[in-house]
Amino acid sequence: MTDFFNGISKIKYEGPQSDNDFAFRHYNPDEVVMGKRMEEHLRFGAAYWHSFAWPGADPFGSETFERPWFGDTLDLAKLKADVAFEMFDILGVPYYCFHDADVRPEGADFAENTRNLEAIVDYFAEKQETTGTKLLWGTANLFSHRRFMSGAATNPDPDVFAFSAATIKTCMDATIKLGGENYVLWGGREGYETLLNTDMGRERQQAGRMLQMVVDYKYKMGYKGAILIEPKPQEPTKHQYDFDVATVYGFLKDFGLEGEVQVNIEQGHAILAGHSFEHELALARELGIFGSIDMNRNDYQSGWDTDQFPNNVPEMTLAYYEVLRAGGFKTGGTNFDSKLRRQSIDPEDLILAHVGGMDACAAGFKAAAAMLADGKLEAARDARYAGWETDAGKSLLDSDLNAITARVLNEGINPTPKSGRQERLENLVNRYT
Amino acid sequence: MTDFFNGISKIKYEGPQSDNDFAFRHYNPDEVVMGKRMEEHLRFGAAYWHSFAWPGADPFGSETFERPWFGDTLDLAKLKADVAFEMFDILGVPYYCFHDADVRPEGADFAENTRNLEAIVDYFAEKQETTGTKLLWGTANLFSHRRFMSGAATNPDPDVFAFSAATIKTCMDATIKLGGENYVLWGGREGYETLLNTDMGRERQQAGRMLQMVVDYKYKMGYKGAILIEPKPQEPTKHQYDFDVATVYGFLKDFGLEGEVQVNIEQGHAILAGHSFEHELALARELGIFGSIDMNRNDYQSGWDTDQFPNNVPEMTLAYYEVLRAGGFKTGGTNFDSKLRRQSIDPEDLILAHVGGMDACAAGFKAAAAMLADGKLEAARDARYAGWETDAGKSLLDSDLNAITARVLNEGINPTPKSGRQERLENLVNRYT
Amino acid sequence: MTDFFNGISKIKYEGPQSDNDFAFRHYNPDEVVMGKRMEEHLRFGAAYWHSFAWPGADPFGSETFERPWFGDTLDLAKLKADVAFEMFDILGVPYYCFHDADVRPEGADFAENTRNLEAIVDYFAEKQETTGTKLLWGTANLFSHRRFMSGAATNPDPDVFAFSAATIKTCMDATIKLGGENYVLWGGREGYETLLNTDMGRERQQAGRMLQMVVDYKYKMGYKGAILIEPKPQEPTKHQYDFDVATVYGFLKDFGLEGEVQVNIEQGHAILAGHSFEHELALARELGIFGSIDMNRNDYQSGWDTDQFPNNVPEMTLAYYEVLRAGGFKTGGTNFDSKLRRQSIDPEDLILAHVGGMDACAAGFKAAAAMLADGKLEAARDARYAGWETDAGKSLLDSDLNAITARVLNEGINPTPKSGRQERLENLVNRYT
Amino acid sequence: MTDFFNGISKIKYEGPQSDNDFAFRHYNPDEVVMGKRMEEHLRFGAAYWHSFAWPGADPFGSETFERPWFGDTLDLAKLKADVAFEMFDILGVPYYCFHDADVRPEGADFAENTRNLEAIVDYFAEKQETTGTKLLWGTANLFSHRRFMSGAATNPDPDVFAFSAATIKTCMDATIKLGGENYVLWGGREGYETLLNTDMGRERQQAGRMLQMVVDYKYKMGYKGAILIEPKPQEPTKHQYDFDVATVYGFLKDFGLEGEVQVNIEQGHAILAGHSFEHELALARELGIFGSIDMNRNDYQSGWDTDQFPNNVPEMTLAYYEVLRAGGFKTGGTNFDSKLRRQSIDPEDLILAHVGGMDACAAGFKAAAAMLADGKLEAARDARYAGWETDAGKSLLDSDLNAITARVLNEGINPTPKSGRQERLENLVNRYT
Repeated sequence: MTDFFNGISKIKYEGPQSDNDFAFRHYNPDEVVMGKRMEEHLRFGAAYWHSFAWPGADPFGSETFERPWFGDTLDLAKLKADVAFEMFDILGVPYYCFHDADVRPEGADFAENTRNLEAIVDYFAEKQETTGTKLLWGTANLFSHRRFMSGAATNPDPDVFAFSAATIKTCMDATIKLGGENYVLWGGREGYETLLNTDMGRERQQAGRMLQMVVDYKYKMGYKGAILIEPKPQEPTKHQYDFDVATVYGFLKDFGLEGEVQVNIEQGHAILAGHSFEHELALARELGIFGSIDMNRNDYQSGWDTDQFPNNVPEMTLAYYEVLRAGGFKTGGTNFDSKLRRQSIDPEDLILAHVGGMDACAAGFKAAAAMLADGKLEAARDARYAGWETDAGKSLLDSDLNAITARVLNEGINPTPKSGRQERLENLVNRYT
Repeated sequence: MTDFFNGISKIKYEGPQSDNDFAFRHYNPDEVVMGKRMEEHLRFGAAYWHSFAWPGADPFGSETFERPWFGDTLDLAKLKADVAFEMFDILGVPYYCFHDADVRPEGADFAENTRNLEAIVDYFAEKQETTGTKLLWGTANLFSHRRFMSGAATNPDPDVFAFSAATIKTCMDATIKLGGENYVLWGGREGYETLLNTDMGRERQQAGRMLQMVVDYKYKMGYKGAILIEPKPQEPTKHQYDFDVATVYGFLKDFGLEGEVQVNIEQGHAILAGHSFEHELALARELGIFGSIDMNRNDYQSGWDTDQFPNNVPEMTLAYYEVLRAGGFKTGGTNFDSKLRRQSIDPEDLILAHVGGMDACAAGFKAAAAMLADGKLEAARDARYAGWETDAGKSLLDSDLNAITARVLNEGINPTPKSGRQERLENLVNRYT
Repeated sequence: MTDFFNGISKIKYEGPQSDNDFAFRHYNPDEVVMGKRMEEHLRFGAAYWHSFAWPGADPFGSETFERPWFGDTLDLAKLKADVAFEMFDILGVPYYCFHDADVRPEGADFAENTRNLEAIVDYFAEKQETTGTKLLWGTANLFSHRRFMSGAATNPDPDVFAFSAATIKTCMDATIKLGGENYVLWGGREGYETLLNTDMGRERQQAGRMLQMVVDYKYKMGYKGAILIEPKPQEPTKHQYDFDVATVYGFLKDFGLEGEVQVNIEQGHAILAGHSFEHELALARELGIFGSIDMNRNDYQSGWDTDQFPNNVPEMTLAYYEVLRAGGFKTGGTNFDSKLRRQSIDPEDLILAHVGGMDACAAGFKAAAAMLADGKLEAARDARYAGWETDAGKSLLDSDLNAITARVLNEGINPTPKSGRQERLENLVNRYT
Repeated sequence: MTDFFNGISKIKYEGPQSDNDFAFRHYNPDEVVMGKRMEEHLRFGAAYWHSFAWPGADPFGSETFERPWFGDTLDLAKLKADVAFEMFDILGVPYYCFHDADVRPEGADFAENTRNLEAIVDYFAEKQETTGTKLLWGTANLFSHRRFMSGAATNPDPDVFAFSAATIKTCMDATIKLGGENYVLWGGREGYETLLNTDMGRERQQAGRMLQMVVDYKYKMGYKGAILIEPKPQEPTKHQYDFDVATVYGFLKDFGLEGEVQVNIEQGHAILAGHSFEHELALARELGIFGSIDMNRNDYQSGWDTDQFPNNVPEMTLAYYEVLRAGGFKTGGTNFDSKLRRQSIDPEDLILAHVGGMDACAAGFKAAAAMLADGKLEAARDARYAGWETDAGKSLLDSDLNAITARVLNEGINPTPKSGRQERLENLVNRYT
């Protein structure tokens, strides 16, 4: 045991009346909702990068956190791992997620990076064994090092494509070895700063081909986990090719991968793309590519990715409602891609931020489950489209413009608007939150 | 001749030194650029709706324009047409565009709408004959009447789908009869106000099926023009299914229509979707779905569609550069989907706004053509990707993760970043504007 | 009694467990919170314009509501009033608010406008007498008629200034006669569309002078109510001079009116200005100009004023918390400046939208009151600034740069950062909502 | 001479036809415009921080630039200064600007910081002497070090206020010693991350008091330069107290400093606050607080401060037009608060970015000067307000609501709208650019 968390005990469920900061008020992992334990529904994961690798810097200020494990040696990487697994244990999150660069020292070249990663993977494997914590997903950081400044798969230099491909392979290997349930790709530099120096068509082909190689490798390795793309519209690049769920879908269709790859949807990225979180979730469900979620909250007045811990329960209710309508998580889960505010420098802030986030998720999830079980919202929706379930409605889509026009004329079809009842439905939702 | 424009003569090219408000300083229709007359390159069209149907109202204020043709009779509709064709003539725009609801009185039902439209189409046919003005595109207004408040093709009520289909048929018929070179679909109500009452999957199927019917009807009628979708992210609805070019592409792929339908891209809609105009144009070109443009300018500080006349030449240079890289317009053109500010109530404002817009387009176009002819920007772009044209680069995309990893290890590939030279390229662009 | 609401009874409080759509679950007017009845705390008002004058049009679509009172006669205006006061009664809102143009037929000139307004004011006076409903505030609509297209007080034409001044006088007279507790000014056209044709300094002087005249007239008439300005950054104009609370404050200071005029803060306007609602409330409190609130909800993904009924209880908790910290409402109240979605065309939508909004306000208010009474948040805030309450802290602000520098050097002051504890405080807030 | 710029010669003016990347096409320092040399009009300054201290990092990536002077020793700081003054010389910018933290190594405490700064100031003084480059302004970096994470003047800890005050004193001393023509305050951390832990009223008092101390110290030291505040709405903090020009004005009025302090307006900050650059400039002029400008360009699609080199000449024309209408710069100037894109890693990128920016400024400035000299735009503006120059117009503002109402009734005032002619004026502007 390290002394970083200095005696904070495992967080327990104490119920809504508790005023213990270090207790869950809503998240009871063993409570059964819709026939399944909440822990199995929510599948919480903690993010290694924000909590253990990010120093608290922002574009106008440097490190605030001063963690004892900061530095670039294998020993410090192990100390970081010790603290991380202690946090997973205190919180009772069943999963964690990482990028290679979060967990290993930076090497001088690919070979050293690989050796460093392998050493840490071995260390993680032991930790997983002893703690029971599992890997939700692994991923490669192909955006922080300066070699990726002009893209990874989409770089104008084929050597960077090669370096990226090799790095992805080692990260997939690590994910497989650690039993990770998904492998994620987020293309932070896969986009452009200016069209003036960019061959968008060529870069798009490079990105598509890389993704095909990833899927091929998955099959070659007999890996059963899911491959996930995480959409984001921009930041750090001016435009990122994986702008939003709809854009990723078109991309997957173009490269024949719509049955192979799903999306990992983040609240903050949805907001930056001009969508609500629930929109992106619903669209992914309808397109058949829903995979997992990155849970955080973006400041609505800030134009960058604030990655705050979630706390607005009504908004989370709408999100989990779409997750439940998609059938819930399969390989996916609720990954806290949330970071402390850089002023929250105390170790206990790290624990409390997660406790509050998990509790808000649990409250939202329970409200969503109750709303779905109750069926009133779905009944109202079905009633609104009932006309399409009549014979006349059903046959309409098989018709053509001439035949429909004749019908409009013959039957004198002149539709009468019907109320959309939005406010009534919003009131209904508020009964559950 | 009506007396609306009260003696304003046909606008002539007088060159950059002219200080005549009623003259072109840059647009010389007969000037040959890259082997073609500017008129044939730019293919200007005027929009009937903004200039002749819109009363100058906004969400907080009513009509300011008080045109003599406002009202809902066939005679007034003909007066409106008289003035419109006079404006086309004064400006020398070779094309115009219209929605059914812009040009005909509103009828009590579909049958009356159709009769009214047919009467006006006959009147337009004569006008086209005598003036030589041609139809760039026609379209159906499926968003203004209250029957469309919950969608047209995507309405929860199949009767509205039917009414919409029949209306599209009559508008395609009108377009065909008038020799329109394109038929456009803009789905202003094809989206949702709230997910709570929306079956997104079902609505998406309805929209896809409607588009297939449109394409089928095109073939049935032997129509040679292009079918165009005009993306817009939102407004009037909270979310519109045709969000942006990338979204439309995925939609077309899903319904097997990517070879049949192209996009009509508007500057203002691009901005609202979080993109630059040139981004949307470049993406459409790379996806093979570039069709036409709606030319206007959106206020960068306003969150709605301001549809102002364009005036920023450097921005238009970047836009026409992408048009030229796409091979220029085929059936498409430059439609002024721009409206007067509602305080610009004088008839001459209508003329001058177009004169300024056409001139700004011409200046931007000439700069773009010079930049392309000069070749320096393309040479810089090609040089940046030169590594992909080597044997090693070419073979890389045919490889796989294992082979690439072996190569990275064996060859010790450790890429060195190269400058993206953005500012230098921006300076280069400024030489032409 | 009209038959518009067709038998909907007065809404009653039934408690959180009720599943009656037509009942309050949280708003119990007689419940005493912090020593006062909730009705007296919240001081709900209904807005005449959205609920009775707005036809359901938007920039792309016309009227959807088709109310029986639409039209421009005195009889219809009275029918409208009948229905309005019925709604106030059904809801149990103690207050309402109106613009002159909402309630009277539009006349041909100022004299006719005034006569029409006076007739309606007499009618309202009777209604108030019989129903007990009171006027929260009155205001003049100086933005809808085309005469105001270039501004009211800030118009380039002094005749429009004069017409506006006279109209304000009649509206203040009406407000006084009806016992209105506040008079509000919202300058929808007091701004510009383009700087190119605008003399900003001159217009600012005109606006300041008009406001001084309003304050003078208040004193001349012995009116005891408050004069309120409602900030908004833009829409309908590109830039509105009353951008936000901070801007209004500088304006008031410039014209010596900071002790005379307060602000009426709207959630939607705060959002459009790039602020949270609670920011604007807190700032107004600190500047001593907090007056009243316009309660609605803006869509976070839309760039225009969506004026939706409020429903997010945690957000409203933060807003009412700032209201309570300002000492609660004096003359002000909670005016529902919220409009139905244009698809919500049924009479019962009008009732249910308000019921849901009032309930959300009540829930938020009660949470805020509990949080304030509990004192934990304020204790944490005080503790954070405790250093400023020591002798050294207190003397610091009376010192100067030289003396402070000497102290830093002599005492070796080298501050140690302390956690801001944001997530912990966010968790705390969530205990009350 | 260092070898960093490797033989790049002093940039010369070669005229618009030049295709030499390393030449000015528009900026001719000795060209006389409106009676003054362009160099004296534009008063260009280079920013030390972006060009020499920023490593090319962004929130998702680390250093790309790898400059030979990176590191925290006095020798490296002198090497940095050598290169910086070489750049100033190559470009021919007469001025530069710096923060203390840009130029000196970071010390362990205030005393060491001060010693380090003094050493560098001596070094700068020599450089200025030998090169003729002058200091436009100095400022204190009170936002990067972790001690400032919760604010400088507005910190909850009075020790940080003290540390900040002392640091400001040393930076003012440095500015005075180097003959700086202005002293600037930008409060990057003077705001809040969350209202929950913030005492806004108290922090505002602290900020006001600090500013008074700065003004007092200026007088005590007999400093003749200007004190400037640089507004910014947010970033890095969620809300910054100096949101925009209007907010700063109210703040200055509140602390009696409106005659003492002016604003340094940045294009990018204007955009982030929801304003155009020309709006902020015009408003500052009208409020009498215009001081200086930070010249850059913000990406209109990105929600953070992109600080790009300016290149859109029509936009800059509008900006310099407002500067000229304000009487031009007195102590202020055109400071390039612009940074290279992080992919622009070559030394020559640093030169070319400034060359392009200076040229774009020069082109915009000349267009603005021509437009002002021509007088057509001002004549149109005056004509629009001509009614206010009549006797009736003039007397109106001295009247009151009763008298005006009587006049409206007696004279039957019923204003007729007049065209705002926006498009015509936009066309006019385009003649000059």
